[in-house]
Amino acid sequence: MPEWMIQFADQKQEFNKRPTKIGRRSLSRSISQSSTDSYSSAASYTDSSDDETSPRDKQQKNSKGSSDFCVKNIKQAEFGRREIEIAEQEMPALMALRKRAQGEKPLAGAKIVGCTHITAQTAVLMETLGALGAQCRWAACNIYSTLNEVAAALAESGFPVFAWKGESEDDFWWCIDRCVNVEGWQPNMILDDGGDLTHWIYKKYPNMFKKIKGIVEESVTGVHRLYQLSKAGKLCVPAMNVNDSVTKQKFDNLYCCRESILDGLKRTTDMMFGGKQVVVCGYGEVGKGCCAALKAMGSIVYVTEIDPICALQACMDGFRLVKLNEVIRQVDIVITCTGNKNVVTREHLDRMKNSCIVCNMGHSNTEIDVASLRTPELTWERVRSQVDHVIWPDGKRIVLLAEGRLLNLSCSTVPTFVLSITATTQALALIELYNAPEGRYKQDVYLLPKKMDEYVASLHLPTFDAHLTELTDEQAKYLGLNKNGPFKPNYYRY
Amino acid sequence: MPEWMIQFADQKQEFNKRPTKIGRRSLSRSISQSSTDSYSSAASYTDSSDDETSPRDKQQKNSKGSSDFCVKNIKQAEFGRREIEIAEQEMPALMALRKRAQGEKPLAGAKIVGCTHITAQTAVLMETLGALGAQCRWAACNIYSTLNEVAAALAESGFPVFAWKGESEDDFWWCIDRCVNVEGWQPNMILDDGGDLTHWIYKKYPNMFKKIKGIVEESVTGVHRLYQLSKAGKLCVPAMNVNDSVTKQKFDNLYCCRESILDGLKRTTDMMFGGKQVVVCGYGEVGKGCCAALKAMGSIVYVTEIDPICALQACMDGFRLVKLNEVIRQVDIVITCTGNKNVVTREHLDRMKNSCIVCNMGHSNTEIDVASLRTPELTWERVRSQVDHVIWPDGKRIVLLAEGRLLNLSCSTVPTFVLSITATTQALALIELYNAPEGRYKQDVYLLPKKMDEYVASLHLPTFDAHLTELTDEQAKYLGLNKNGPFKPNYYRY
Amino acid sequence: MPEWMIQFADQKQEFNKRPTKIGRRSLSRSISQSSTDSYSSAASYTDSSDDETSPRDKQQKNSKGSSDFCVKNIKQAEFGRREIEIAEQEMPALMALRKRAQGEKPLAGAKIVGCTHITAQTAVLMETLGALGAQCRWAACNIYSTLNEVAAALAESGFPVFAWKGESEDDFWWCIDRCVNVEGWQPNMILDDGGDLTHWIYKKYPNMFKKIKGIVEESVTGVHRLYQLSKAGKLCVPAMNVNDSVTKQKFDNLYCCRESILDGLKRTTDMMFGGKQVVVCGYGEVGKGCCAALKAMGSIVYVTEIDPICALQACMDGFRLVKLNEVIRQVDIVITCTGNKNVVTREHLDRMKNSCIVCNMGHSNTEIDVASLRTPELTWERVRSQVDHVIWPDGKRIVLLAEGRLLNLSCSTVPTFVLSITATTQALALIELYNAPEGRYKQDVYLLPKKMDEYVASLHLPTFDAHLTELTDEQAKYLGLNKNGPFKPNYYRY
Amino acid sequence: MPEWMIQFADQKQEFNKRPTKIGRRSLSRSISQSSTDSYSSAASYTDSSDDETSPRDKQQKNSKGSSDFCVKNIKQAEFGRREIEIAEQEMPALMALRKRAQGEKPLAGAKIVGCTHITAQTAVLMETLGALGAQCRWAACNIYSTLNEVAAALAESGFPVFAWKGESEDDFWWCIDRCVNVEGWQPNMILDDGGDLTHWIYKKYPNMFKKIKGIVEESVTGVHRLYQLSKAGKLCVPAMNVNDSVTKQKFDNLYCCRESILDGLKRTTDMMFGGKQVVVCGYGEVGKGCCAALKAMGSIVYVTEIDPICALQACMDGFRLVKLNEVIRQVDIVITCTGNKNVVTREHLDRMKNSCIVCNMGHSNTEIDVASLRTPELTWERVRSQVDHVIWPDGKRIVLLAEGRLLNLSCSTVPTFVLSITATTQALALIELYNAPEGRYKQDVYLLPKKMDEYVASLHLPTFDAHLTELTDEQAKYLGLNKNGPFKPNYYRY
Repeated sequence: MPEWMIQFADQKQEFNKRPTKIGRRSLSRSISQSSTDSYSSAASYTDSSDDETSPRDKQQKNSKGSSDFCVKNIKQAEFGRREIEIAEQEMPALMALRKRAQGEKPLAGAKIVGCTHITAQTAVLMETLGALGAQCRWAACNIYSTLNEVAAALAESGFPVFAWKGESEDDFWWCIDRCVNVEGWQPNMILDDGGDLTHWIYKKYPNMFKKIKGIVEESVTGVHRLYQLSKAGKLCVPAMNVNDSVTKQKFDNLYCCRESILDGLKRTTDMMFGGKQVVVCGYGEVGKGCCAALKAMGSIVYVTEIDPICALQACMDGFRLVKLNEVIRQVDIVITCTGNKNVVTREHLDRMKNSCIVCNMGHSNTEIDVASLRTPELTWERVRSQVDHVIWPDGKRIVLLAEGRLLNLSCSTVPTFVLSITATTQALALIELYNAPEGRYKQDVYLLPKKMDEYVASLHLPTFDAHLTELTDEQAKYLGLNKNGPFKPNYYRY
Repeated sequence: MPEWMIQFADQKQEFNKRPTKIGRRSLSRSISQSSTDSYSSAASYTDSSDDETSPRDKQQKNSKGSSDFCVKNIKQAEFGRREIEIAEQEMPALMALRKRAQGEKPLAGAKIVGCTHITAQTAVLMETLGALGAQCRWAACNIYSTLNEVAAALAESGFPVFAWKGESEDDFWWCIDRCVNVEGWQPNMILDDGGDLTHWIYKKYPNMFKKIKGIVEESVTGVHRLYQLSKAGKLCVPAMNVNDSVTKQKFDNLYCCRESILDGLKRTTDMMFGGKQVVVCGYGEVGKGCCAALKAMGSIVYVTEIDPICALQACMDGFRLVKLNEVIRQVDIVITCTGNKNVVTREHLDRMKNSCIVCNMGHSNTEIDVASLRTPELTWERVRSQVDHVIWPDGKRIVLLAEGRLLNLSCSTVPTFVLSITATTQALALIELYNAPEGRYKQDVYLLPKKMDEYVASLHLPTFDAHLTELTDEQAKYLGLNKNGPFKPNYYRY
Repeated sequence: MPEWMIQFADQKQEFNKRPTKIGRRSLSRSISQSSTDSYSSAASYTDSSDDETSPRDKQQKNSKGSSDFCVKNIKQAEFGRREIEIAEQEMPALMALRKRAQGEKPLAGAKIVGCTHITAQTAVLMETLGALGAQCRWAACNIYSTLNEVAAALAESGFPVFAWKGESEDDFWWCIDRCVNVEGWQPNMILDDGGDLTHWIYKKYPNMFKKIKGIVEESVTGVHRLYQLSKAGKLCVPAMNVNDSVTKQKFDNLYCCRESILDGLKRTTDMMFGGKQVVVCGYGEVGKGCCAALKAMGSIVYVTEIDPICALQACMDGFRLVKLNEVIRQVDIVITCTGNKNVVTREHLDRMKNSCIVCNMGHSNTEIDVASLRTPELTWERVRSQVDHVIWPDGKRIVLLAEGRLLNLSCSTVPTFVLSITATTQALALIELYNAPEGRYKQDVYLLPKKMDEYVASLHLPTFDAHLTELTDEQAKYLGLNKNGPFKPNYYRY
Repeated sequence: MPEWMIQFADQKQEFNKRPTKIGRRSLSRSISQSSTDSYSSAASYTDSSDDETSPRDKQQKNSKGSSDFCVKNIKQAEFGRREIEIAEQEMPALMALRKRAQGEKPLAGAKIVGCTHITAQTAVLMETLGALGAQCRWAACNIYSTLNEVAAALAESGFPVFAWKGESEDDFWWCIDRCVNVEGWQPNMILDDGGDLTHWIYKKYPNMFKKIKGIVEESVTGVHRLYQLSKAGKLCVPAMNVNDSVTKQKFDNLYCCRESILDGLKRTTDMMFGGKQVVVCGYGEVGKGCCAALKAMGSIVYVTEIDPICALQACMDGFRLVKLNEVIRQVDIVITCTGNKNVVTREHLDRMKNSCIVCNMGHSNTEIDVASLRTPELTWERVRSQVDHVIWPDGKRIVLLAEGRLLNLSCSTVPTFVLSITATTQALALIELYNAPEGRYKQDVYLLPKKMDEYVASLHLPTFDAHLTELTDEQAKYLGLNKNGPFKPNYYRY
């Protein structure tokens, strides 16, 4: 084992000991937690439950005779193709990229290995990368989230895809390995969501990094891993943190959660929002979205915060700022959006009133101390998919959603439009890293250049028939700006 | 004239030639533009119009026999004192600072020269600085905005104040000079709003900087000047840019404008907002505040933007993004909040419908091309203070507010609470610069440390009876945070 | 056939010829339209698809040996009972009624025959009526909406229930007949939803009305039938129109639709609301609810109206009032809430843009001219339950939800809290009619007395921990009011 | 004295003893309370304070030589004319009426005596009535509210106007008398606001009613008097209650108050709304408007109610329903909108926190028990016009606005658009009563026919460029409606 691997392992251990702001927990499981979070919107469209054979044991060929893939059932390709076509209609930015890049192929020569959720929207991204000149090999970043029909459609179109819904942990790593460990093909770009692919290459094929031009990473967890590597001086290629670009942040958090909190609560509980008392823990982007939506629907919303600036924002936006203890007996709903752990403790749960709904919109399942509810005196009753009643000896019931995992991933869907913004950001980051002149990026983690962030936004404006104003020469001069942007200093807060 | 002065002058000229993003215009006037903007909230509470003698020609003494001040009429002190007392009730953070600092005097030995608007709120700040151990001398940063009664009250309390409402330009510089050019006293701290005081010292008493520990600057214009000096390598002391602290930005822009756009329009026009069509040019913090308020009051709001990210935010917030030309014929109100120039041109004005209201909430009077309306075929009719009807030959009237100057300064008032946040930020910045260990700050422009920004916010939470949650040790460790903050990375957008 | 029946038939024909404001259409089908509208929230909780035998052909007994019922499968009773228990927790008003009436039995001696949707909430109502002293026999008012498990639970508890999901038309009338045509038992109260039960008794057992003290009718359609009967002088008992009580109107329409428009759109299309352009046809209570919700979620909403007063309200609430033609090419969503017919015509549909979503929140499936889409050149593609793509020859797709039937019934659920208000109103109306002194009600249609309307509201306040203020004697005298209400004149608009 | 007068007097006494819902109090003052409420928007535009001579003692002639008027100063006519012209631009409905009636003169022969506030908007109404063929004589309904310049302009145009700002009570009745007691002219229509004119004619010239075709009454108080007369069988002509028409109610209450609560609070206190805790007493139209506005500005709003239906609405709209006692210690603002008396008692005032703002948006000055604050231990300090600090012995200050009188009349302005709706309603009511065929109206109080209410609304739609949809013949038939309205049943709640 080469020395850097030992260091990497050490560093990881330390990292486990000192979890950091973005809320990374124990890595005792050998794959990242996010890779095993269930993910309901990834419901299968066709019924394939009849087939119990492992895809690894099957012999499948697509219509062109290739068998360089491993999916549940290649015959589901047609259904998956329709899903991809529907998704294309709502991903205008990627379709626009395809058009603009018809002449030049900015990714010609790129060999991209990817590890993301495999959905219709990912398929549109992959086929866009293909249209831009890249070769791709792909695995799933989550053992539950693959849409088998979409994987089949991609395989049918010639993409080497290795993924199915319900992989075992062994399958998970086997699929990743099949993407990178292939004769006569070596990746020069990585697109990762969660860091497992990057981790695997670091661990198994460190030499591969010599040819790799860069890593594009999408998730909070994966980005955190990269910063740790960088800090430890072990990041050996440039990496792009697309998680913190403005458009992604605002859409994944503020705008998306504003809608999905309502959707997730309705689908699971059919409750009425009007008049309900709700406490939202955390007033970051996610909390702001949840609060705005519930206030608009007639709920009475309380907020808890640890940061006095966010707290003051909550006040100015019309929410009472409280400690959880002050309102825990009276609220109808408790929502966590902090990124912290044990925000809702057993003590809080003991004091909630009958029928109180508890759910988590934050980034992992640590916010509610669900483990504390697994005690003998409490009875769990599964009343619907993703809905448990936890029953106290005196008959009090708490309604726990998604067992404390992410409500919006588990119990609602993510709109294609949001995924379109993310996918476009990923595509642009790949193009940027692949084409950047030597020296522009060093072995470090970078944010997407603001101009590209603005470009992603501009590609999505036509969806809204939105008409941007252009600066006159005189105005650009007055403002000291280039007419094409970037338009704001880096510290601008939007 | 020392060499640096020449360079400073040169740099200034260049600076005039290439105006920059923050919208700096011609400096041909010898005092900063902001120093002559009229400022209505500074209405005088008592009638002193009977007295036409210049304060410079008067012999006045306060009750303790001192005559080291120059105000309109020392006899108005009592009335001013009451205004100060009322303001104290709404500036709890400064009052809290006074209390906490009763034991230690963090500004003991500080000799602060200040140049700001002289209002009751400034008086609370000055008296707080005094309570913290500082000696202060003060002039006005605007020739119209001084509240004579408050100036009198300060003079009566022993503060050397040199300011009155309606100074001439000569008076303006004379007052500033009286603050700094005094035997046996030399300032070691500067608190400036607009940069005129700093400019004066640079020009007249450059040696004074040897003893000065730092500059705290409040305004966009003044901050811009400081960055220019820094860029040119001519900043000879550390400077604190308090303009861009989070709390100040959000309060001065988003939250304050959300209220003052309604107030300014009502006080000037008594119009009804419901059903009105409004176009807001610019969707920065100010534009966001204006749009939110008008939408909530039942107006139909259109937005124009040059930045695709802000444009996408406008879309997601429910506003049609248009070019001004598309809606200019149909709207009832046009509001500029861009920081740009000539956003509303004569051509736009020609096409507006009868009775259209035009006003500016941006940072200077350049946004509406008011000069273009000074042509012979148009008739101006002043219908109220701050309200002009500009009448076209065919009888069409445009209602122009505050002659295109800032509506919220000219036609509404700034709530004491907002001023409290600003004043607290200024006080903390002074304390920080004055007490910072050698080397922490170099000859550069700094943002307020995030922890202080958070501290300012926390001092204002009791006003709302808001209860902050504290991290447990375990949680702080999990998040990798100090329990007392700072709680966010520097790039956090709030 | 007695003469009145002939007249009733005649009147019905006329009624068909002159459809009226509330939008009653052809009665050519022998059961009311509402009785065949599909109703998704009535999803079955257990899988009973294995059993194809008609319940009419089964021999079933409950555990007490009774076979006076006809349900799908008596063995599902336990599951149904749990659903009822869950519903009880959200129907505090009925539970409160049970408690208050433990001593006196205001419905002692009442024999109620009912015909409503058979859901857990109805079960709570029926068991409340039982607790108040009534005997009940029940059929379903809709051939699809029965929850088999709940019906089983009621049958198990001894209620003679005749209903199952998926009745034929013949089954429908057979069930109703089994409720009324029973030896040794004759109803003295009717609770109807849609008027089919009332119609059946009029047609088959007119003499039964001699013993009947009154009819309580819940639906727009049924109420309209009663007013027609009354107008024609053929109503032979008092009837209570509970459809137009204040609380029911506001909850069924404004507050419920404010939430269900979002829910229905999300569950069917997973679309994002932010930035979408929507036209809402009709600005009554339903339209107001839809507009408020979509505006709050960041949609840009246009309104069409025929009534200038509602139109002016739309303006003041911040919506552009347009004709449908003006915006039909640009909108992303079209929602009808008019109660009118052919509001959206084929011509409109032809002009919509690709992917436009079309749905109906009004009271019947006439608002969108769906029939006009059943032409050979258009392809229909069912993409999900309740979602059709209608595809034009040029590839344009329109997304039609629920085939133009009610979106909120078909694609979302009705919160228990809303049903609680309706059920409480029904219970109070039954008590009022049953106990009213001779002469208080004549053979006419009555609104619920305002005091009872207020009582229904007051029973629901504890849900929100809401504390009502009581008038002092002095205040009551000043206002000329009884301290216990009613508090408003009849024409008050709320 | 004729018998009916005695009875009228008796009835009035009784009426005083049993005050009723609309909150009529003691009539011990000889003129109606509303006639002495101060009214700030009626600020004089020109300075006429130099002239202390009573108008009754002046000899004035207009330019045509007429002296049949009595105003402050006929020379101010020109200034008043400009105000009228500005108002005309915002009263499109009346201007449209003028145009439509150019051919036929629906008020030809009408002799209208009026008693209303005399403002520019009233002038537009009067001149419209003139254009429609009527002769008018006019007095003021309030001793403070007359705009002298407007009165002068009307007199100059030939209208016999008898009104000035600052009348004594004797002047008040003298002016009214001069309107009706004139040789060779006898009114046949009455337009009243408050009932004082009607009262005077009843008392002094009862025979005049023989020729009078009807009364149009605008105010709550006046309408109440008419209903009392009608109940007592003493109303001798038809009367039209225009106060309760839909458009007037919604605009005067909901929409107008939504704006004026913010305006009134800002102008008096310059406070910031964000984060403030507010309790609003009463959730009728006025309360709904206040709550919506403050919630939108970021205040935290509590509501008190006596009516459970309105209470439930408050809950569903997202407001905590409390008793005043529960929150009185913590709120920053108390607003009354109940129409009740002593809603805020001395006990409440004693418990409020320092700096709490107290004001009234309800219909009279009884809601806050201001009298209870006139005790020796409390100090009153007038800090601004309409703003008093009431100071407790321990230094606590309560900020009382407008001494508990109507905040929106005293401290903000009523938008011309609202006045336009009222004035149009009055004009249409006059036309209807004057032209109604014998027998349509009896000696009773009527609401404006719904069709006219709709007509008023339709005349105001062009202001918003709002486009009404017309029913097709087929649709009208389907709905059973006339294509031109009325579109709703009388009980419709909007």
